[in-house]
Amino acid sequence: MEIENQVSLTSVPGVMAASGYLGIKRDGVPDAALFVIPEPGAYSGVFTQNQFKSACVESALDRLHAGKSIQAVLITSGNANAGTGLQGRADTEMLAAATAKQIGCKADEVVVLHTGVIGVPLHAVRLLPKIPALVAALAPTPEAGKKAADAMRTTDTFSKTSIRQVHSGEGSFTVAGVAKGAGMIHPRLATMLSVLVTDLDISQEQLQKALQTAVSTTFNAISVDGDTSPNDSVILLSTGEKPLMDSDATNAFQDALTGVCEDLAKMIVKDGEGATKFIEVEVIGASSDEDAEKVAVTVVTSPLVKTAFFGEDFNPGRIVSAVGRSGARMDWEKVSVRIGDILVFKDQVFPAVEVGTSQVVMKADTIRVAIQIGDGEHRSKYFTSDLTYDYVRINSEYTT
Amino acid sequence: MEIENQVSLTSVPGVMAASGYLGIKRDGVPDAALFVIPEPGAYSGVFTQNQFKSACVESALDRLHAGKSIQAVLITSGNANAGTGLQGRADTEMLAAATAKQIGCKADEVVVLHTGVIGVPLHAVRLLPKIPALVAALAPTPEAGKKAADAMRTTDTFSKTSIRQVHSGEGSFTVAGVAKGAGMIHPRLATMLSVLVTDLDISQEQLQKALQTAVSTTFNAISVDGDTSPNDSVILLSTGEKPLMDSDATNAFQDALTGVCEDLAKMIVKDGEGATKFIEVEVIGASSDEDAEKVAVTVVTSPLVKTAFFGEDFNPGRIVSAVGRSGARMDWEKVSVRIGDILVFKDQVFPAVEVGTSQVVMKADTIRVAIQIGDGEHRSKYFTSDLTYDYVRINSEYTT
Repeated sequence: MEIENQVSLTSVPGVMAASGYLGIKRDGVPDAALFVIPEPGAYSGVFTQNQFKSACVESALDRLHAGKSIQAVLITSGNANAGTGLQGRADTEMLAAATAKQIGCKADEVVVLHTGVIGVPLHAVRLLPKIPALVAALAPTPEAGKKAADAMRTTDTFSKTSIRQVHSGEGSFTVAGVAKGAGMIHPRLATMLSVLVTDLDISQEQLQKALQTAVSTTFNAISVDGDTSPNDSVILLSTGEKPLMDSDATNAFQDALTGVCEDLAKMIVKDGEGATKFIEVEVIGASSDEDAEKVAVTVVTSPLVKTAFFGEDFNPGRIVSAVGRSGARMDWEKVSVRIGDILVFKDQVFPAVEVGTSQVVMKADTIRVAIQIGDGEHRSKYFTSDLTYDYVRINSEYTT
Repeated sequence: MEIENQVSLTSVPGVMAASGYLGIKRDGVPDAALFVIPEPGAYSGVFTQNQFKSACVESALDRLHAGKSIQAVLITSGNANAGTGLQGRADTEMLAAATAKQIGCKADEVVVLHTGVIGVPLHAVRLLPKIPALVAALAPTPEAGKKAADAMRTTDTFSKTSIRQVHSGEGSFTVAGVAKGAGMIHPRLATMLSVLVTDLDISQEQLQKALQTAVSTTFNAISVDGDTSPNDSVILLSTGEKPLMDSDATNAFQDALTGVCEDLAKMIVKDGEGATKFIEVEVIGASSDEDAEKVAVTVVTSPLVKTAFFGEDFNPGRIVSAVGRSGARMDWEKVSVRIGDILVFKDQVFPAVEVGTSQVVMKADTIRVAIQIGDGEHRSKYFTSDLTYDYVRINSEYTT
């Protein structure tokens, strides 16, 4: 998290950013962020799997399926524009058109993302007068990038940014990303949004494939109970400024993109509402990816496991019970579990552990749980946080 | 719950009960309950689906698969005898043999159930000297039945009993049950245990079928996230005293048995650790039972939905999001949701609801959520409670 606040999308050459107040929120707090690249560029995206989708996700998916190039991403905060019917979709397109007009591109070269309260009409027409000022504020400076990342925040306690600068052969390129989202189960239905930009010149097809690969082990590995909101979106644009040299560069790009996504995903978990611990659960020895994932998801979504970590209660029985009920194919006689460096379950029994030893592990801020379920080749890693009083407070007091 | 404390298994003619202290717990609090019928009778059981099983479940399953008749059920509290290997199984059988010797039946005509801490050796040999006194205390009185139901409690704040007395044609019979368990997700890995007895003379095969049918819509409908413990057990015995008259009686028996199980299951939810609300979620219009169940389970296990109910926060968006991510096949255009009598989602939009109207619904102790997902014939009903500060407190402070 050391890199927080030091970078934003403006670290990628040519990217401009702005933040502003459109009038969605009541208090004058910035409720819009805008990122623009010099020309429409290759566009890829991964969106919520929820059947309940915001108008903005439908709009962004339409552009993706039509193979559009994209020059700008507008993010508005305070209203999710979900469950708002045909008028909702018209509201999203209205904002895209108004932004495009000021930038000088086509309406379908702008992607609009919303986050906020569900089921309330957005009334975009009242927001349009503020769009020119937002576009006029665009700047390629770190300050503008930082303010735009801040404007994406809702319940986040800090803004989330990450960057990789890669030298591959004779070339070099950059991947940068910003994200908003707090909590391992998308509390408050606050959307997980991320916008990523690279200057590597890479085809739309390759871009989409790389993004899906990166998301599967990062952002998707923190959506621990699949509690997706109607608005979850990860978008990646390319300015196309830096030539793709060779296949080495392609691999380096994938690594850099996955790295940036993992940084951002871990920040979202660490910023989980009320979270006091970061918990990493790795499952190995599975006979398929699905089996590994079933075990990992069952453990990281167990309220019993998560409250035990909050209480720093050394409780291997809860983890082993979660493994046993996961529904994954496994060889129960070969199941073993480690918390940190401590072997807590093997050969169907719990070895005795000194209280002093277990306390050291449980008091750490970051706790690793390693679970072997057989001799297979497949594995899965998930990240989560603990379940705390503050989680209940924040999510029970929230009023739509 | 009005029937609490007024009945126990001793309400069935011939059933004797006892409670006592074997020495598992440290404080002299009763840690054993014993129920005995006049002769070995037809025995059926439904057990945890967790791959991690207590020695007592393995022992009870062996008797079930061998088609044994059973005369006595011994329940011990304080140690789950799970994750204890071969010695654990020997400990269970030792208790069965000692009890059988005093009663005058065979060792495999006694089922032993344990509940308590996981992974700690039981050392049954030290408990054996107290078995004769426990058996000597057997009595057919309401008081003995009541005390035995109480001795099953661990974190339960009240003992759970239910009865149905049925007149069918010229005959009559009784079904009675006791249960222990607190909370919808088996907090503390406290086991859900239930012992049921009928005096209807019914075959082992019919008994097993009836029990599975009853459990599927009652006890299994409160294991809301499948967070089964290694010890969960539901056992049904028949004394065989009352002749089975006709098929009407068979149907009446099924209804009575399901009714008793539903009473007990609801009591377990209402006794959920920290629970302040009882929530019933019914899904209709599904094209299969599995689809209906997927939606119901996703809604009742959503921490966001459960904290909103605790906060009495009218938040239909969280419910609709859970429906949308459930993975069930559904016709999204036909999805509608009601909270109490209020239609909160239909035709992909959220109708406006007066604040006063929504507050009345949210302040109730029992809240019904009805979800339609299409025009299919299949449905599912689940019960749960809200997610509260006390849930986090109890489960984070517990030390194994």
